[in-house]
Amino acid sequence: MERITATYYIETPYDPEKAAMVLAGEQSSGTFVAVPGETAELKERFAAKVESVKHLETVTTPSIPGATSSTGQFNRAEVQVSWSMENMGTNLPVLISTLQGNLYEITQFTGLKLMDIELPPSFGATFSGPKFGVAGCRKLMGVETNRPFIGTIIKPSIGLTPQQTATIVETLLAAGIDFIKDDELLGSAANANFYDRVDAVMEVIQAHASKTGKKAMYAFNISAEIDEMQKRYEKIVTAGGTAAMISINSVGLSATKKICDIGTIAIHAHRNGWGMLTRHPLLGIDFKAYQKIWRLVGVDQLHVNGLQNKFWETDESVVASIQALQQPLFQQQNVVPVVSSGQWGGQAFETYRRTKTVDLLYMAGGGIMAHPMGPAAGVVAIQQAWKAAVDGLSFDEARAQFPEFNSAAQKFNTK
Amino acid sequence: MERITATYYIETPYDPEKAAMVLAGEQSSGTFVAVPGETAELKERFAAKVESVKHLETVTTPSIPGATSSTGQFNRAEVQVSWSMENMGTNLPVLISTLQGNLYEITQFTGLKLMDIELPPSFGATFSGPKFGVAGCRKLMGVETNRPFIGTIIKPSIGLTPQQTATIVETLLAAGIDFIKDDELLGSAANANFYDRVDAVMEVIQAHASKTGKKAMYAFNISAEIDEMQKRYEKIVTAGGTAAMISINSVGLSATKKICDIGTIAIHAHRNGWGMLTRHPLLGIDFKAYQKIWRLVGVDQLHVNGLQNKFWETDESVVASIQALQQPLFQQQNVVPVVSSGQWGGQAFETYRRTKTVDLLYMAGGGIMAHPMGPAAGVVAIQQAWKAAVDGLSFDEARAQFPEFNSAAQKFNTK
Repeated sequence: MERITATYYIETPYDPEKAAMVLAGEQSSGTFVAVPGETAELKERFAAKVESVKHLETVTTPSIPGATSSTGQFNRAEVQVSWSMENMGTNLPVLISTLQGNLYEITQFTGLKLMDIELPPSFGATFSGPKFGVAGCRKLMGVETNRPFIGTIIKPSIGLTPQQTATIVETLLAAGIDFIKDDELLGSAANANFYDRVDAVMEVIQAHASKTGKKAMYAFNISAEIDEMQKRYEKIVTAGGTAAMISINSVGLSATKKICDIGTIAIHAHRNGWGMLTRHPLLGIDFKAYQKIWRLVGVDQLHVNGLQNKFWETDESVVASIQALQQPLFQQQNVVPVVSSGQWGGQAFETYRRTKTVDLLYMAGGGIMAHPMGPAAGVVAIQQAWKAAVDGLSFDEARAQFPEFNSAAQKFNTK
Repeated sequence: MERITATYYIETPYDPEKAAMVLAGEQSSGTFVAVPGETAELKERFAAKVESVKHLETVTTPSIPGATSSTGQFNRAEVQVSWSMENMGTNLPVLISTLQGNLYEITQFTGLKLMDIELPPSFGATFSGPKFGVAGCRKLMGVETNRPFIGTIIKPSIGLTPQQTATIVETLLAAGIDFIKDDELLGSAANANFYDRVDAVMEVIQAHASKTGKKAMYAFNISAEIDEMQKRYEKIVTAGGTAAMISINSVGLSATKKICDIGTIAIHAHRNGWGMLTRHPLLGIDFKAYQKIWRLVGVDQLHVNGLQNKFWETDESVVASIQALQQPLFQQQNVVPVVSSGQWGGQAFETYRRTKTVDLLYMAGGGIMAHPMGPAAGVVAIQQAWKAAVDGLSFDEARAQFPEFNSAAQKFNTK
């Protein structure tokens, strides 16, 4: 019988082996009282198993409260626990409750983070994954395979009318942008009704497409209750749009899956709220595990932050996230990693050096709109940076060769 | 214009006032580059406002990584920030992305927890809340207002067949139980198909109801993708069931709302995964804020852990959670706090002393099934404990007066 294996980074005042056994018990057939039907056969079939325990460092201060240590020591370890597919099948919410449920409550742990999940082939047979993914998004945006998609977010995040938004979109289209999105703070504001925004924005996108043959992708934020999301999705389709954005942590898994399943337009998955789930090194979930769940759900694009970003995350962590998305998952199409936060083109070199891919959606805000030579030069400068990075040019060589990129570097380079 | 106010507990290497301004900016109209349409009028209308900053303790070690301090100090504070309703209206996912989105990523914070939310009347007008709540659940279970609902969880969590489950249910019904639930680990296991379980369990519940006039509530775990949840919900309704359970963190907000909106049966909200969101004192969300969101969603019963529980949570925290649910929310019915984890009846005294309510679903596992005089005595013992607590008897007086409770105390009292 197929098994699902989860890897945890734990901290415990007890022996890591014992703590892992408690976890496995609590999250499967474990119980504190004998009840009818609790047989050895049942335990053999449904009990979670501790597959491995790798001892790591020992510390004297617990990472999260709720337990004391008689020795004053807290032991860290990497543990692997497996469950039979017979327990939950391919039901994703029950899988999450099993792998990430009450175990964070257990006093045997002063730290617990789900690091990775290994899923057996049944999941590949059940979940077809992204309907568009990298290849489908390239077709929708008309972007060749030799460079990343270049995108931006409408700013200010909130407060613009549909017409003001459309005016900015027009400027960005003229600049040659591939992708634009709503901010996650904007759904349907008092002066920016969702449906009016779709009409105003799609009018200029359609006009530009008729004229040039290039149809930029605009990800409208449809995050809402499910019926309203479906209505907004339909509105985008009717207006000729090619993408919808969902704040996946706010909307939740089952409703996001329902929208992804429609499959008419691409789904841009925004992970806002993610910091709460991962920022602590010994609490929550690592992106490696998180992204697998959302690839099964079927999102087409997923945020990964960016190198040298304006947030707390290290470059190592961002690179690991991009690499996680580059790993094949069954026969599914690859999800587009959305590189965002403080990007302008200067990071293209390090991003490419460490990930060796151009299958990215590279988002820049100020880097485009505030380029000294105007937004069109802003887009060109990013394209130049990526071409230079792929061609093996250094940052300084790129500056020497490309005037638009050099101008961007004069303004944005803070190194 | 109505405003939404959020209270945060923060830690920052900067002045708390400055950090709060960054939060407000990042989560509303703030932007790093001037763009067309960004006027003073727009900012006045849509910018989040820092309402208050209360300085608290200063520490020398940051709670979560991602920032250094030039002074070596990290300042804690309670800050209140408000947003105009014009920004997001009553859209709950966008509200969550605003109050709990990218702000956890901001380097200006080495700790950030959403402690409470104040919602203006529009939310009350939009969301009718629980369809059953305390009063409706009393009617469904036929429990008078003078005592809590007494419930239990089928154990082992996973591995029993539908028939084995039904046999245990039969024993519990004969014991006079009000409420039974699936474990969150069990959806539809290889040997416990959901639909067969509903048939088997409801057969004994219906038979018992015909005989005695008392219909116990069984909360079947319907957590799944949305179409499957709707199908399972219909199955329960058809079979004459009165409740469905949802693992709310695993299923997510929008799909849970869709199910709650049906309104035919009560929704038991299991908060497994909650430890990840709240266990760290300076990361995530406090129950006071969390429960408001789920009351708007419309769940009828919500887990709060229990006093002297087997998990990490302190009694103070559990009491605060029960009290949060006791606070009225608009004109909504009250949600039933689900008191669970290591309960047997001994905790009734302290629970009642500190909350002064019997409007609770009091869940005991071993306390019922492993009672020395049998499950029926286990249920009676808990009823006795609650009667004694409400009547002002002490723990020892209750032992002297009630043989079943005394027997339970001999086995379970660990104080």
